[in-house]
Formats: sequence, C-alpha cells, structure tokens
Amino acid sequence: MSDGIVFIDGDYVKPDEAKMSIFDSGFVWGDVVYDVTSAWKRWIFMLDEHLERFQQSIDGFRLKSPYSHDEMRRICAECVERAELDNAYIKVQMTRGVINSQSRDPRLGECQFVAYATPYVWIWGEEKCRNGVNLYVSSVERVSSKAIDQRFKNYDRADLVQSRFEAYDRGCDDSLLCGPDGYLTEGPGYNMFMVRDGKVSTPDSNILEGVTRRSVREVCRLENIPYEERKVHPDELKDADEIFCSTTAGGVMPVTGLDSQPIGKGHKGLLTSRIQQQYWSKREAGWHGTKVEDILNG
Amino acid sequence: MSDGIVFIDGDYVKPDEAKMSIFDSGFVWGDVVYDVTSAWKRWIFMLDEHLERFQQSIDGFRLKSPYSHDEMRRICAECVERAELDNAYIKVQMTRGVINSQSRDPRLGECQFVAYATPYVWIWGEEKCRNGVNLYVSSVERVSSKAIDQRFKNYDRADLVQSRFEAYDRGCDDSLLCGPDGYLTEGPGYNMFMVRDGKVSTPDSNILEGVTRRSVREVCRLENIPYEERKVHPDELKDADEIFCSTTAGGVMPVTGLDSQPIGKGHKGLLTSRIQQQYWSKREAGWHGTKVEDILNG
Repeated sequence: MSDGIVFIDGDYVKPDEAKMSIFDSGFVWGDVVYDVTSAWKRWIFMLDEHLERFQQSIDGFRLKSPYSHDEMRRICAECVERAELDNAYIKVQMTRGVINSQSRDPRLGECQFVAYATPYVWIWGEEKCRNGVNLYVSSVERVSSKAIDQRFKNYDRADLVQSRFEAYDRGCDDSLLCGPDGYLTEGPGYNMFMVRDGKVSTPDSNILEGVTRRSVREVCRLENIPYEERKVHPDELKDADEIFCSTTAGGVMPVTGLDSQPIGKGHKGLLTSRIQQQYWSKREAGWHGTKVEDILNG
Repeated sequence: MSDGIVFIDGDYVKPDEAKMSIFDSGFVWGDVVYDVTSAWKRWIFMLDEHLERFQQSIDGFRLKSPYSHDEMRRICAECVERAELDNAYIKVQMTRGVINSQSRDPRLGECQFVAYATPYVWIWGEEKCRNGVNLYVSSVERVSSKAIDQRFKNYDRADLVQSRFEAYDRGCDDSLLCGPDGYLTEGPGYNMFMVRDGKVSTPDSNILEGVTRRSVREVCRLENIPYEERKVHPDELKDADEIFCSTTAGGVMPVTGLDSQPIGKGHKGLLTSRIQQQYWSKREAGWHGTKVEDILNG
C-alpha cells in the first residue's frame, strides 16, 4: 500500500520528500489553517463543504489562497489518484509563507498551499474508533475563541497535546476539554456528544463546527432522534446514558469509559450504534460523496 | 553580510536550505518550544539563562532534548561563528518530530533540535525600536496560561498575528494584548512596562517572563528606579507618563503613542531613555555576555 502523495510547491511528491522552510510563518507564528476530509471507496466525503469551511478558515486568518476552490478540488482528487488509495485521509493546509526576518509584517506573506492523501487514519486505531474508548476530562483549558477563533481550523494545538498527556497519565485513551466558562468544548480533533433519555446533546460554542458533526445532526434528523446544540457541563456526563465523538478520521466513535469508569453499561450504546451504523452504511453508498474519477474527468 | 547559518539534522546549512518535514508535530500540533538570544559585538547575551529557560519550556511541554545544555551552547556559538556575524539573532527550537500518521501518541515523537544565527533583528526596524512606536491595545485576547502556559515560549501565536492585523487596521505599528481577566499581558514577542510618577510597573501573569524584562528589572535596581510586577489594567495606560517594551530583538523600546494618541509628551520618556541607554551601553561592554570564541575554545 502506498503511504501517500503530497502536493507541495506545485509538485506531487512522496511524504518523506515533503518539506517546508523552517522560517514559514505557518510554523513560527502558528499562522496556518487546514481542513481534513476522507475518501471511502474512492468517494470523497463532502468535499465542497470541507473546502468551503477551509475557505472560511483562510478568510478568518486573513490568509489568501493562491488556488481556487475548483483547483483545490482537483488537487485533492489527484493526490488520492496518484497515491492509489481507495480509502484516504485527505488534508489541505495554508500557511502564510516565509516573511523576511527583518520584518514581521504578516501582510507581506506569500501564502503556501499544501494538500495530501495518505491511507485513511483511525485516530484511536480502528478497533477503538468502532467499539469504544476511555476518555478523560482534562484540567487543561481549551484555547478560548476570544484568543483564537476555533471555528477556524488551525494548528495552534499545544493545549490539546498537553491534555492528551494528562489523559495518558490517568490511563485513559484521550481527552475532552472545557472552555474558559467551564463547559465542554471538544477533544483533540473531534466533537463530542452526550445521550440522555434518548436525546443527543452537543456543545455549541468554542468548538470547531465539525463536518462529521453536521452529518451526525443529519442522521439524527433522518432517524427522528432528538438532537440539540447547547452548553454541556462536564458534571452532566456522569448521568449520561451514552457518549460518542465524531471526526473525519474515525467517523462516529463510541466513548465507553470516562476516567476508567463505565458510561452506561460500559459498552457501545444503542443510539450510538444506530448513528454509527447509519453513518458508515451511507458512506459506503457514496453519501455526500464525489467520485475521484468524476473530479479528474470533470 | 551573511544571511545566517542554521543547525538542523546535525548539519550547518544556509537558511534557504533549512527545511523540515511538513508532518513534524511541532508544526501540525503547535508542539514546539523555542528561545531567542542575541550576540552583540560577539558577546552572546545571557546564554545560560536563555538555555535554562529553553529547558524549562522543553520540560513544560514534556519534550526531550537530544542535546545537553553544553552541546546547545556550543552549537549556538558555532552558528554565529560560521555565519560570520558580530551582531546576531540566535534562536533555538525543539519540535516533537514526525509521529506515524496512524498514531497520534505524542510519547512516540523523536524530538528535533534546530538552532540558527541570522543578522540581528529589530522587530520594528532600528529607528522605531530606538525612538518609539505607536501601539494598539487589541480586542484579541492573549491565549490563557490555563490553556497553554505562556511561561513556556511556544509557536502557538495565531492570537498575536491577528492582534497585529487589528493594529495595522488602526494605523498602529503593533499591539498589546489583555488576558482573560482583562488585564494587560504582553505584545507579539515583547513584554510591556508602564511608568507613572517615576515608578515602573509591568504585568505579572499570563506572560513570558522575558530575559530582557529581567535585565530591565536589574537596571532599575542598579539605578534605584522603583519597579514592580503586578496586574496592570489597560485603563491605567491613559495616565501613563511613559510606556516601553522589551525583547531580545530590539532591547528596550519606547512606546510614544497608543492608538495614535501621544503618551506623555509624545516622544521617548526620560526614564525609558535612561533604562535604554544603560541597557545598550552595558551590552556593548559585554554585560552578562559570553564571547563566541570563549565558547568555541572552551
């Protein structure tokens, strides 16, 4: 299996050849946005929605894309095609580029676009993503949207890394973080949902508004499952019947433990199973998908 | 004049050859710490203090250095020597390295150390750093130390970039940011000080505890200038007699305007001048300095 293809500096190269300047502002100033989608059986999921959100992140960070939406669309498909992958993790990223060291004026940056396709990623490994993880509500606070607007998907994620270390120290698989108001936000790269009395609730602020989260909302609507976006306090989790998370790299993922205490019956909940099963069967059938070959031949 | 030398992957290379993997966690997770010192007339300023703080940042982020303090010391001197610079900007940085894309476990990273020396940088250009800038108190909040501990010098600085855009929009040169409690913290890469009735006050929390800030404290002590570290509210600035900032890349830098309104008499204040003059005359004389050749021959 290929380990992927990267589009960088206008060329398609292998991942271990994909290098950037250590002086790029995207690195030294965290001045970078990105987005991630996936191909499943060569159907790229909600590509336009992801690229639209990417454009929102670009605008939000006051970056300027050297490529149009259609060009980026085609580059993503080219990466999957050249990587010879059926199931792929597809990332796009935009940095501000290298700025002369004697100036620190971000307006002088020449933005750099990178895209790549690598084999599909399951953030906790396939087994745990499908059947359940043990999370820890971290004491590390999520960076406030008053500082860095979390609607714009960015690489300023040192808080998330430290929360993960804390979770490992507690013998857990990963973390959930609260915002400055003490309410739940998200985990490192995923949204979270709580099920109580048949109703799904998910945090509504200081989060990335995930595209997979949007799919969960859609599945809930189709399945007549009550769904609400609201403030969710971490104390509510101890009374949760089920908890699950969502992300591109894993889909709909059950949480079966919290600080090593079982959630509900300690295994994947019924509602979670139903949403997860709907999500994957729809994905297999090309739900909200565009075939790689249709983009390349279009 | 040389444009510098970078130590990367165990080699000394030119800046435009200094490249890193786009998959390094230091980039994609903002999982990176750094420090900056300078050489002036080949005296490297407070090198041990900077490397000690760098080590604190490394420990704080749970990174592991592949090099000892003495090795890093020597590498810094080598960079200045090979770059043939008398006055240099010297940076050290540590990233977590590339982690296999199928795992996101930061414990698996192999930390990467990079150091470089480039020509000395004046963050606002030499003239403004010596004679005064016009700053803007930003509406963008500084990332809270509850999320990312700002004592650990890191590249998660998207808040700082956006605050600078806001300052430019207002016709100002740069910005100052408040923390989540509404009190002043720092600007993009510098500490700030207010002078009122002959007394110097500087914020005490949610900041990088700058080494140049420490030098200001020392100069104040030597010159019998009252100095205190405390919460400073932005409303106090309108009654300030003088404002100044400090950083490695500019030293002690007067602020003569705030949102284009003059501070005090609208030119460099008397106390600021005295501290600035002391700082630079001491630097010229090798204050807290180590000669490049002494490190290399040591």
